[in-house]
Amino acid sequence: MSDLHFPRFDEDKLHEECGVFGILGHKDAAALTALGLHALQHRGQEAAGIVSYDGALFHAEKQMGLVGDHYTDPAALARLPGAMAVGHVRYSTTGEMALRNVQPLFAELEVGGIAIAHNGNFTNGLTLRKTLIAGGAICQSTSDSEVVLHLIARSQHRSSSDRFVDAIAQLEGGYAILALTRTKLIAARDPTGIRPLVMGELDGRPIFCSETCALDIIGAKYIRDVENGEVVICELEPDGSISTHSIRAATCAPERLCLFEYVYFARPDSIVGGRNVYSVRKNMGANLAEEAPCTGDVVVPVPDGGTPAAIGYAQASGIPFELGIIRNHYVGRTFIEPTQQIRAFGVKLKHSANRSAIRDKRVILVDDSIVRGTTSVKIVRMLREAGAREVHMRIASPMIAYPDFYGIDTPETDKLLANRYSTLPSMCDYIGADSLEFLSLDGLYRAVCGQPRDSANPQFTDHYFTGDYPTPLCDRTNIDNVHKLSVLRSSR
Amino acid sequence: MSDLHFPRFDEDKLHEECGVFGILGHKDAAALTALGLHALQHRGQEAAGIVSYDGALFHAEKQMGLVGDHYTDPAALARLPGAMAVGHVRYSTTGEMALRNVQPLFAELEVGGIAIAHNGNFTNGLTLRKTLIAGGAICQSTSDSEVVLHLIARSQHRSSSDRFVDAIAQLEGGYAILALTRTKLIAARDPTGIRPLVMGELDGRPIFCSETCALDIIGAKYIRDVENGEVVICELEPDGSISTHSIRAATCAPERLCLFEYVYFARPDSIVGGRNVYSVRKNMGANLAEEAPCTGDVVVPVPDGGTPAAIGYAQASGIPFELGIIRNHYVGRTFIEPTQQIRAFGVKLKHSANRSAIRDKRVILVDDSIVRGTTSVKIVRMLREAGAREVHMRIASPMIAYPDFYGIDTPETDKLLANRYSTLPSMCDYIGADSLEFLSLDGLYRAVCGQPRDSANPQFTDHYFTGDYPTPLCDRTNIDNVHKLSVLRSSR
Amino acid sequence: MSDLHFPRFDEDKLHEECGVFGILGHKDAAALTALGLHALQHRGQEAAGIVSYDGALFHAEKQMGLVGDHYTDPAALARLPGAMAVGHVRYSTTGEMALRNVQPLFAELEVGGIAIAHNGNFTNGLTLRKTLIAGGAICQSTSDSEVVLHLIARSQHRSSSDRFVDAIAQLEGGYAILALTRTKLIAARDPTGIRPLVMGELDGRPIFCSETCALDIIGAKYIRDVENGEVVICELEPDGSISTHSIRAATCAPERLCLFEYVYFARPDSIVGGRNVYSVRKNMGANLAEEAPCTGDVVVPVPDGGTPAAIGYAQASGIPFELGIIRNHYVGRTFIEPTQQIRAFGVKLKHSANRSAIRDKRVILVDDSIVRGTTSVKIVRMLREAGAREVHMRIASPMIAYPDFYGIDTPETDKLLANRYSTLPSMCDYIGADSLEFLSLDGLYRAVCGQPRDSANPQFTDHYFTGDYPTPLCDRTNIDNVHKLSVLRSSR
Amino acid sequence: MSDLHFPRFDEDKLHEECGVFGILGHKDAAALTALGLHALQHRGQEAAGIVSYDGALFHAEKQMGLVGDHYTDPAALARLPGAMAVGHVRYSTTGEMALRNVQPLFAELEVGGIAIAHNGNFTNGLTLRKTLIAGGAICQSTSDSEVVLHLIARSQHRSSSDRFVDAIAQLEGGYAILALTRTKLIAARDPTGIRPLVMGELDGRPIFCSETCALDIIGAKYIRDVENGEVVICELEPDGSISTHSIRAATCAPERLCLFEYVYFARPDSIVGGRNVYSVRKNMGANLAEEAPCTGDVVVPVPDGGTPAAIGYAQASGIPFELGIIRNHYVGRTFIEPTQQIRAFGVKLKHSANRSAIRDKRVILVDDSIVRGTTSVKIVRMLREAGAREVHMRIASPMIAYPDFYGIDTPETDKLLANRYSTLPSMCDYIGADSLEFLSLDGLYRAVCGQPRDSANPQFTDHYFTGDYPTPLCDRTNIDNVHKLSVLRSSR
Repeated sequence: MSDLHFPRFDEDKLHEECGVFGILGHKDAAALTALGLHALQHRGQEAAGIVSYDGALFHAEKQMGLVGDHYTDPAALARLPGAMAVGHVRYSTTGEMALRNVQPLFAELEVGGIAIAHNGNFTNGLTLRKTLIAGGAICQSTSDSEVVLHLIARSQHRSSSDRFVDAIAQLEGGYAILALTRTKLIAARDPTGIRPLVMGELDGRPIFCSETCALDIIGAKYIRDVENGEVVICELEPDGSISTHSIRAATCAPERLCLFEYVYFARPDSIVGGRNVYSVRKNMGANLAEEAPCTGDVVVPVPDGGTPAAIGYAQASGIPFELGIIRNHYVGRTFIEPTQQIRAFGVKLKHSANRSAIRDKRVILVDDSIVRGTTSVKIVRMLREAGAREVHMRIASPMIAYPDFYGIDTPETDKLLANRYSTLPSMCDYIGADSLEFLSLDGLYRAVCGQPRDSANPQFTDHYFTGDYPTPLCDRTNIDNVHKLSVLRSSR
Repeated sequence: MSDLHFPRFDEDKLHEECGVFGILGHKDAAALTALGLHALQHRGQEAAGIVSYDGALFHAEKQMGLVGDHYTDPAALARLPGAMAVGHVRYSTTGEMALRNVQPLFAELEVGGIAIAHNGNFTNGLTLRKTLIAGGAICQSTSDSEVVLHLIARSQHRSSSDRFVDAIAQLEGGYAILALTRTKLIAARDPTGIRPLVMGELDGRPIFCSETCALDIIGAKYIRDVENGEVVICELEPDGSISTHSIRAATCAPERLCLFEYVYFARPDSIVGGRNVYSVRKNMGANLAEEAPCTGDVVVPVPDGGTPAAIGYAQASGIPFELGIIRNHYVGRTFIEPTQQIRAFGVKLKHSANRSAIRDKRVILVDDSIVRGTTSVKIVRMLREAGAREVHMRIASPMIAYPDFYGIDTPETDKLLANRYSTLPSMCDYIGADSLEFLSLDGLYRAVCGQPRDSANPQFTDHYFTGDYPTPLCDRTNIDNVHKLSVLRSSR
Repeated sequence: MSDLHFPRFDEDKLHEECGVFGILGHKDAAALTALGLHALQHRGQEAAGIVSYDGALFHAEKQMGLVGDHYTDPAALARLPGAMAVGHVRYSTTGEMALRNVQPLFAELEVGGIAIAHNGNFTNGLTLRKTLIAGGAICQSTSDSEVVLHLIARSQHRSSSDRFVDAIAQLEGGYAILALTRTKLIAARDPTGIRPLVMGELDGRPIFCSETCALDIIGAKYIRDVENGEVVICELEPDGSISTHSIRAATCAPERLCLFEYVYFARPDSIVGGRNVYSVRKNMGANLAEEAPCTGDVVVPVPDGGTPAAIGYAQASGIPFELGIIRNHYVGRTFIEPTQQIRAFGVKLKHSANRSAIRDKRVILVDDSIVRGTTSVKIVRMLREAGAREVHMRIASPMIAYPDFYGIDTPETDKLLANRYSTLPSMCDYIGADSLEFLSLDGLYRAVCGQPRDSANPQFTDHYFTGDYPTPLCDRTNIDNVHKLSVLRSSR
Repeated sequence: MSDLHFPRFDEDKLHEECGVFGILGHKDAAALTALGLHALQHRGQEAAGIVSYDGALFHAEKQMGLVGDHYTDPAALARLPGAMAVGHVRYSTTGEMALRNVQPLFAELEVGGIAIAHNGNFTNGLTLRKTLIAGGAICQSTSDSEVVLHLIARSQHRSSSDRFVDAIAQLEGGYAILALTRTKLIAARDPTGIRPLVMGELDGRPIFCSETCALDIIGAKYIRDVENGEVVICELEPDGSISTHSIRAATCAPERLCLFEYVYFARPDSIVGGRNVYSVRKNMGANLAEEAPCTGDVVVPVPDGGTPAAIGYAQASGIPFELGIIRNHYVGRTFIEPTQQIRAFGVKLKHSANRSAIRDKRVILVDDSIVRGTTSVKIVRMLREAGAREVHMRIASPMIAYPDFYGIDTPETDKLLANRYSTLPSMCDYIGADSLEFLSLDGLYRAVCGQPRDSANPQFTDHYFTGDYPTPLCDRTNIDNVHKLSVLRSSR
């Protein structure tokens, strides 16, 4: 139903698909999971789900909408009893959005139930699905994640954790997966470490989640990142204690975390790969001020994404930081399909020019990234109409030119600004700015880790900038071999 | 959610689980299916679903509530394009009611999608489920029907219809199943013919449905009953013509249709097993007048179930038929959990005494059946309070004493009136009537087919009266062998 | 919103606008009012409202939909505390349906609040409204009933009951009005006694309601009818006792109750004007059998309206009564605007022919009344298609030829069957029946009161048959004088 | 219903009641009004309403929730045809929240309909209401605004604009009112000019609205402020042109605009009283830095209210501005009544500490105002837990110590921080900060207008700081004389 769709005003941003959270052995498991998911809401606003286990039965709540719309309701939490839970927030990349695709997914195994919450994407998902269907598996959802469930269900191993490890081994791509069985909370991160996953602790009980901000909200302690290619298995023992062990594939390549977590996805207060995101973004702004200096009167961020970089730019350049653009936080849900009358007002529904702060000023406009450039055009025009004398656009990351296959929603590549215009001047012309500059790839690397890119062994995943994919792209290579679905379109 | 639950005012009735409808090769497939399901609404009021196929994609609509609440909406029908459709109305026997259990169910097979709509119950369903889970199948719903899907998906046969036949052969119990593939509409009826299934035709296009009233509403022609143990496969050929062929197991036992279709389930205007239900019920009333005559002033039905039998009783006895009880048709949906204040008014929410028609009268009160007797107690009391001089209760079927395992929702057997009181006088005393009589089993058989029960080869399924189950009860016999589910309780 | 509208499948019937219920001094006031309204639901299915007073505050609940959809919910009743309540069920005659028009209406007076529930229509309502607006009154609703509130508010009298009597004296037309003040329940019936209103008692506490069936459901005792032109004032004294007194205009004309209450509106088990409605309708059928005998095999009612008359016809003629038409009770709410595909199936959504009961039979089809005849056409055609050899239509009331102005929703008069065709044969031809006969006006009068119509002083209101209006028609006469509203169309 | 309530996470803020918008003679009137209200959403998030007039009928849409949730839906706008419209966003100060209180309110006058949208509060509202009820007026809502309607309806003047002026003359307090008649858009501002109201123009068509940001969003031009005590009447002439004239009471006192518009209410990009709000707030921060300097490492705002002042403080002091607190924008609607488990997490649902930016730092924490201080306590504690070495709180306005009666929702005065603690050190101790300072009243005045407070003729309304009320407080003075309402509590 259309009223279940969320605004896509950030349509000119890349989008993360999901966030995950799990906790084992805590009496407030579901409430803590709800809070954790609330802190991860920026990773997916379309739907949220929680599965708990109370020692006898698994319980699931899945709802379209924000965590805070449903899961803090006492009645909702009462339907999620038990001391262990996993949860998931979702941003849908596909045209189809339906409750049956909302995670966590669940399967009844011979040895008991298992629930799965998954962030990321498998580059061999469709290939695996084809084999599974040929083997008699029934796929109920269009979600890639269901493939994991089938691999677990079909594993010849006896214990649920052995089955999980067996299944994980068949996956390629970028992922962070949490699994909940009757006694265990299991966490797995892809061999390349593309998607983030951290481990924390509250009252001595283990927690896994996508970002540290989900630990902070509940006062939990950050322990460490789950390593690339690692599977961590926490088990609730009969005596109430927790045992933990870790399995790691011998042949694991070095970690290459996704750079876009730093550029845009992660919350500024999170610690990702051991680095504070806000500080990294300020570095990006500072490096940008160095690489692409500009004579201007004010540094103005495109809020909220560009704000930390703008602060960094302002501090490095000594030019004052000003709120030249005001963001309207009351963007409703049904703005997604406004009338043509309304649509024409475009970006103003979300952003307005703070006329007095920019009139007759030379504005240095800082944003975190440019995808298609459509929003940038409107913002530059809005600033000019509000009286800005000059608008110099500075982007705190390189040009995006290649699609992602690891869980980021990228538009068709020929719609990317970098592919529509071959030169910086032509891009600048399209944007309508007086000048346009991007942070260099090395500038970005240095902002994150203090070193330029090691082209032999790049420290991070950066294919959207470089085309250098860190894993094989099985489905893409064998596109004709992939099972064509007579997909069930469903109202639910 | 509580507002999704439907009134259980007929809680003192047995309930059918479902009704099915399917049509192949007609441009108005979904609209006709909606109308057919509307005519079958008495077989299940809790939820309804339709799956259509448009030559490229399958489309599904599933909704809690009445067919007429949703499926006549142009937007809903527009979401169900294509010239072939199957539909289902559902009455839930289980405590759990969730959209994911609403049929038709769908699976993506190697050879294309298949949708299944199912009325009835498998007596070996849990046993099959155990084997399937051991083989790595993932069961998403708690519906028995999902087992059929898995058997089809795992069949080694190539074509969907061969797979279907293969799957059906493994089922025991009572069922009528419709399947929709990309080119075929397939209908199957259980070997004993417990559940009804008829074949009809509109504009030369085949239709299968639970009762003939679903043919009448769309002006379709009744062709014949699907026979017990028969699988009928209709295929839409590339030239638009329909080819039909039938497969029947060699070893099929004689048909034994469920007697309760005549007693209560089927609509009075339906033709079931070649007999008009209304006429059979009038016969039941007439036979009852003969077996259990009564000196009285008026014959009063418990509406609407007892009305045809009361007309039969009145015509046979020459005692006037009168509407001594008025039924309130405006029983809302949330009456299910009324306050105690309201609950105390009990049966009056649905029935009221027509004082003038019964005051100072000797009332012969006719009902179709008695399950627990709780409603009968209230109705007899209501009539007495309204001034009836005598109340003689006459039941147009035998005592119900045994549970059903073929798709009828029966209360725990120790709650059945026949098991709570060992003698007719003690039952009569409980009901509060001046006299109480049941139609004999032979009387019922004669009303239906003109012959008494052939105890060697009973013509019908009658275990609720006799304990004579027409099939093995695999799950019940091997109860310890059955997989214990750590069932996922879900809000959706 | 369209989904709040109810089916108009009885669009070929006349419709009553409303039902009212009030009780004073009973601890379960709101629950009893909810039950009473449930019993009166046939008088209005579109919306229901209850106002209670708890000694300090008035409380209101107003909901679109059926009483049983909302008011039996413990939460809803908990919002209606106090020992006194009035309630209202509504059928809207106007195109606009909005919550703000749902009754009871409420006003804050100088002497305290007052709530009004009203059934009927004022023939000088628009004229009064014009005067009120000229005097500075603000009309919030389009409801005629608001006029009463304003007259009360503007009365120069001090006490709320004196104000009420003062207001009532200015009204013309047909009405039954209940008012609730902080200590009183007041009931008033129009001088001609067109609309019905009865008084009952439960546990010594007074009740007023439209029909006795609302007393029966709660086990209350019928006391008497409120007389035409009478105002009954019941007051809850500080000691908890009830004092009652009655005021009656000296110049009151004889009562002329609306005949259509007997023909169609009232529930068959109600006592209206001292006569059981079911018995009256059977008389109508018997008289019809006498006036318009017919050679036939079966007497078949158009359910449910025609059923009592058909039983009367069958008993008088000795021809068997048969359920030749089965009514589908599961007519959903959104059938109101079905697709054209669905609409074409028309009457079959609600009625189906019981083929076996009518095939090759000469059917005597009995209905209570004919308005436009459009449904009759479809039913006759349906019976013929189902195999009826002959269809003889017998209508248990005279032809309807004139509009109503007292609270009955009548179509435009040129759409009435009696005005579209000038002769009985041409009507019969349109209906498609083999013969068509109406009960005579005298036959109807005799069925009701045993006497033919006294043309000098007709015993009942019968203008829809005769054009003889029992009151002046002020608004209609002064149509140009009436205030033209720039009506506020509102989504709520 | 609880789901209609909005989060009160800003419960430690003062709240404005409403925002208004109106436009005359523009073909996109309703769409432009929806956009304007969207820009004014910060003035009221609970409900929104629009009334349009299409030359024949008035049309109303009123909805709980955000503007963007409803009014950009093409269907909603289609229900608001016509070239003139007024709209309203509402924040409810009363316990009762019901649709019937949502504005604009409407009345049918003798000379045609009129719709009213109102921001503010009448200090003689209850007194006027008492007189109106004594005069026979019916009050349907509990809204103060209804009083205006009644005064208009009862005015002896003929034209709607004369009636409006007549009504306005009887009001005391602070208000901005828009009225829409069949040909006119009328705007009025209270004699003291407490509430803001500006006039703009688009395509030559007049617009009135609460703040200039509502002009900016639609690209309209700011003309001037409506003056205190002025009534501006714009009329759409038959030839399509607009005539405008203004009426101003001769005895008008000097304007005293509400200071809190600058402190917190108005959007930073608005021009209020000719001054850019963002600049004023930066001035407040700069003055604060001067008045209450502090040795610190970082200046951290409490977002979003404290951000402009923090920027001003940072620029004035040379101490770096840092985002030490991250705001979670995904605060759902039902967080209002969270479980106790959840509630305990309190402020973290909305704010989280950006650990890396503040660890081991001396933090200068800047907020716009303190009401009860409860949120400040939690934020200071959160910063300390996150590692801040010192927390120095700086408030960019004086202490709030007195209630408001002009449309601002103030808590009971004994709950105000300034009244609970008598000395700054004791307040600081309660807050838990290392130091606490407030901007002086003169410091605030200077930030706004460059001058200290003129105590003889204060330039602004500032009673919440000073107790100096700019108007008589009629209702408050005559509290015993005020009509006690037996208020109708209603679900709608």
